[in-house]
Amino acid sequence: MTAPILPSYVRDTWHVPNGEGRPVFDAVTGDTVAHVSTEGIDFRAVLEHGRNTGGPALRDLTFPQRAALLEDLGGFLRGHRDELYALSARTGATLFDARFDVDGGLAVVRSYAELGRTVLPDARVYVEDEPIPLGRRAGSFLGRHVCVPLRGVAVQVNAYNFPVWGPLEKLSQSLLAGVPAVIKLATATAFLTARLVELVVESGLLPPGSVQLLCGGVGDLLEHLTEQDLLSFTGSAATAHLLRNHPTVTSRAVRFNAEADSLNCSILGPDAVPGTPEFDLYVEQVVTEMTVKAGQKCTAIRRALVPAPLVGAVLEALTDRLSRVTVGNPAAEGVRMGALAGIAQRDEVRQAVAALEGATKRVFGDPYRVDTVDADPERGAFLSPILLHGPDPDRAEPHEVEPFGPVATVLAYDRPEDAVRLAARGQGSLAGSLVTADVELTSRMVLDLAPWHGRILVLSGAHAAESTGHGSPLPQLVHGGPGRAGGGEEMGGLRGVLHHMQRSAVQAGPDVLDALPGGRTPG
Amino acid sequence: MTAPILPSYVRDTWHVPNGEGRPVFDAVTGDTVAHVSTEGIDFRAVLEHGRNTGGPALRDLTFPQRAALLEDLGGFLRGHRDELYALSARTGATLFDARFDVDGGLAVVRSYAELGRTVLPDARVYVEDEPIPLGRRAGSFLGRHVCVPLRGVAVQVNAYNFPVWGPLEKLSQSLLAGVPAVIKLATATAFLTARLVELVVESGLLPPGSVQLLCGGVGDLLEHLTEQDLLSFTGSAATAHLLRNHPTVTSRAVRFNAEADSLNCSILGPDAVPGTPEFDLYVEQVVTEMTVKAGQKCTAIRRALVPAPLVGAVLEALTDRLSRVTVGNPAAEGVRMGALAGIAQRDEVRQAVAALEGATKRVFGDPYRVDTVDADPERGAFLSPILLHGPDPDRAEPHEVEPFGPVATVLAYDRPEDAVRLAARGQGSLAGSLVTADVELTSRMVLDLAPWHGRILVLSGAHAAESTGHGSPLPQLVHGGPGRAGGGEEMGGLRGVLHHMQRSAVQAGPDVLDALPGGRTPG
Repeated sequence: MTAPILPSYVRDTWHVPNGEGRPVFDAVTGDTVAHVSTEGIDFRAVLEHGRNTGGPALRDLTFPQRAALLEDLGGFLRGHRDELYALSARTGATLFDARFDVDGGLAVVRSYAELGRTVLPDARVYVEDEPIPLGRRAGSFLGRHVCVPLRGVAVQVNAYNFPVWGPLEKLSQSLLAGVPAVIKLATATAFLTARLVELVVESGLLPPGSVQLLCGGVGDLLEHLTEQDLLSFTGSAATAHLLRNHPTVTSRAVRFNAEADSLNCSILGPDAVPGTPEFDLYVEQVVTEMTVKAGQKCTAIRRALVPAPLVGAVLEALTDRLSRVTVGNPAAEGVRMGALAGIAQRDEVRQAVAALEGATKRVFGDPYRVDTVDADPERGAFLSPILLHGPDPDRAEPHEVEPFGPVATVLAYDRPEDAVRLAARGQGSLAGSLVTADVELTSRMVLDLAPWHGRILVLSGAHAAESTGHGSPLPQLVHGGPGRAGGGEEMGGLRGVLHHMQRSAVQAGPDVLDALPGGRTPG
Repeated sequence: MTAPILPSYVRDTWHVPNGEGRPVFDAVTGDTVAHVSTEGIDFRAVLEHGRNTGGPALRDLTFPQRAALLEDLGGFLRGHRDELYALSARTGATLFDARFDVDGGLAVVRSYAELGRTVLPDARVYVEDEPIPLGRRAGSFLGRHVCVPLRGVAVQVNAYNFPVWGPLEKLSQSLLAGVPAVIKLATATAFLTARLVELVVESGLLPPGSVQLLCGGVGDLLEHLTEQDLLSFTGSAATAHLLRNHPTVTSRAVRFNAEADSLNCSILGPDAVPGTPEFDLYVEQVVTEMTVKAGQKCTAIRRALVPAPLVGAVLEALTDRLSRVTVGNPAAEGVRMGALAGIAQRDEVRQAVAALEGATKRVFGDPYRVDTVDADPERGAFLSPILLHGPDPDRAEPHEVEPFGPVATVLAYDRPEDAVRLAARGQGSLAGSLVTADVELTSRMVLDLAPWHGRILVLSGAHAAESTGHGSPLPQLVHGGPGRAGGGEEMGGLRGVLHHMQRSAVQAGPDVLDALPGGRTPG
């Protein structure tokens, strides 16, 4: 049987491309699952359809009405979770991984539905602040910042590692803002995202033109972007650079947001010696971040910064834990870590590990050998967890070369300020963490780490049970980071919605400002 | 006497460049006033000095302490206003223009001083929101967004048209945020900005390394920017594009803000027929925007959108008013409009007017002839106000070609939605205005205009006495606009300060969050 070619959803119809397309493989068996191609799509017409059909329909709804759509959409998708889990397994994901992706995505949808219902006004625009006096006579002439949906399309370029969470995260923010979406999926896990969007379409909940799907390349789409469109990207720093540099994006100042995987660190506090709950939490967390999604998380820990005297103990404890991680077919019993998304992705990780070779010693794992349960380790994209130790923490490589897989490097630090300095060597990260029970130390270090981090988790024994984890972006908190992490910001509650809107300062008399929908101060 | 070469202020010393430098001319007489050059400056060292000396000193101050610096600096500069006015005249500015620039700049300084004293906490960092519950047990694990100063330098590239307001506007926001500045002045009006910064240095108020000045090109400075630096630019859309596209800016995701001059429009409401106060206000405002600063304002009205039946009356009234505008030496009695900043700038305006020729008819003014008081119209950069009429409002040129001088084009519209459509043809503007007494019409149109505007002024007879004017950015309101206007945002009260800071989501137990300075909820 030939693997099907995935149709794109453009202009409210399913478009089956001409030609053969690029193959998409089962991460576990290496079999071809599907093909993708966007040949024959008129990308300019895609944007126009979003602008002319989807935009007006969404803008016609109030925030609570858009929130209700999200709520219903989340409910509908929840009813198809098992199907999405099953498809996830073919991307190499264990059931735990799939839940992280699918349930996590649904949680974002739910969170934005709630925001739209409870925080945003019963209106189509968002008035951001109280009236600002401008005239000399009190109340005679005022200013207010009104946020209105951009009139274009949100082009959402997704990464392969979260085929459900990623698209849902971006989609819920743009829909709530009133901006139609064009979802570009990632090839490696295309069949899962394609099914997700098919379900979204099947739900019949969204207005025509509000969602389109590109199963393959974007062709000349970027050339047709305008100042009213957004381009949001999740993926590698290299691709982020390419998109940010696109002549249309720069010349028309297209709103651009990038969330790029970064060399995130986790710092063990000097107090967290073996025997403390923090030591165990740290080891557990590093192993979790290395193995969940086979380490294919933009937020995963790549650099474990450990007080010099504790390096030996940490390496030993991590080795012990990693040696007990069962790798294999995610559908098989007892498997803790599945496959990478594909052979190409594994090749890249192997190359990155090779690039780290001069600067690190391999403490655990062999990039070319892994025992697998119920799977062929070479036909499937399997890889052993790999623990590295960088004897010289000041070498550039561990701070710059990112193996996007189950790989982490332990680096020693002397004083807390050295840990901060090493953390900053990553040139901007999505997430960092600090594992310590020393509150005084924490409050100093957090502020010194903050300029380089979009999110910082502080973990101690006292709060461990409630912690949401180093690697989990939350819809209430910003997701993004400076520099290498893309310099962008998503989510963070209302902030992510406002990124899709134009803030305009309206100056007028009180009669005009009062007549703006949503302009009256409640109560 | 040879005109002096302006020294740059780098690494807390005045650097006199080698070589001759580029000449800077008196806009009124054409005489050479000064030379500029940054030859011999080590730009990397400039950035390092800001990062290593200015940054730590500023970050060591609390917001109220930084606000006090601003307050004192404003007071010191206010004592030198007359000197700045006098220098302004040599840039072609009338006393009215000079006050707009100098007093306007001081007003921004004062506004940010007040913000720092009254709105920002007595702390070094800004905690943005209330604790966000994250754990399952209430209050057990929380998130908060902490904003900390970026650890780099704010590179502030200024435009020639506001040699005092521009640098002060950018400087007050960066200083209050705790980020050192490198001020790059614009050549055409270099002698005025250079004196301003000399005064700032002479005041002795600012910590070492917190302000540096480049009198000339930036050399290889941009290549040394990192993810902790900011690049903020005011000027032409073309230069904005170049800077945004710089390989270091894109590859390191350097925070970039552009505020570019745009083809701003002002819309006359259909109700505002001759005889209404609104008609007169409209005509007065268009003339003001054409002539203040000789039309060299990023926010000036370039497109006057007028109901078709009123075009004749508007052209007649504007012609009448413009014919009474006295052009000449700004120091001379009775002069309403001075010179452009220089001959090169006038050449550009003439070229732009020529480019508009096919699409417009000249109703008033000759780009090659002007009567001047007490000045040689050719040696000085004098230009007559020029009023154009575009008989076909759908032609591209009036929406795309910007004469950055005393030039505006009247375009007819039929229905209000046509006015909105034409306004949007500017592809993003800093400011727009709507002159009408029709409140119902206003509230509809404002929301439709908002996606293309950073700021919208609504003017009617009832509020005219209190109105702050189409062309005046205010520190309380955002200044910036989408697309052609640069896609950026400055000021807007606190917003402009936060643009200099990294927002980091901190997740921790309540003990840790409470220990963050500024973390406790007041009261």
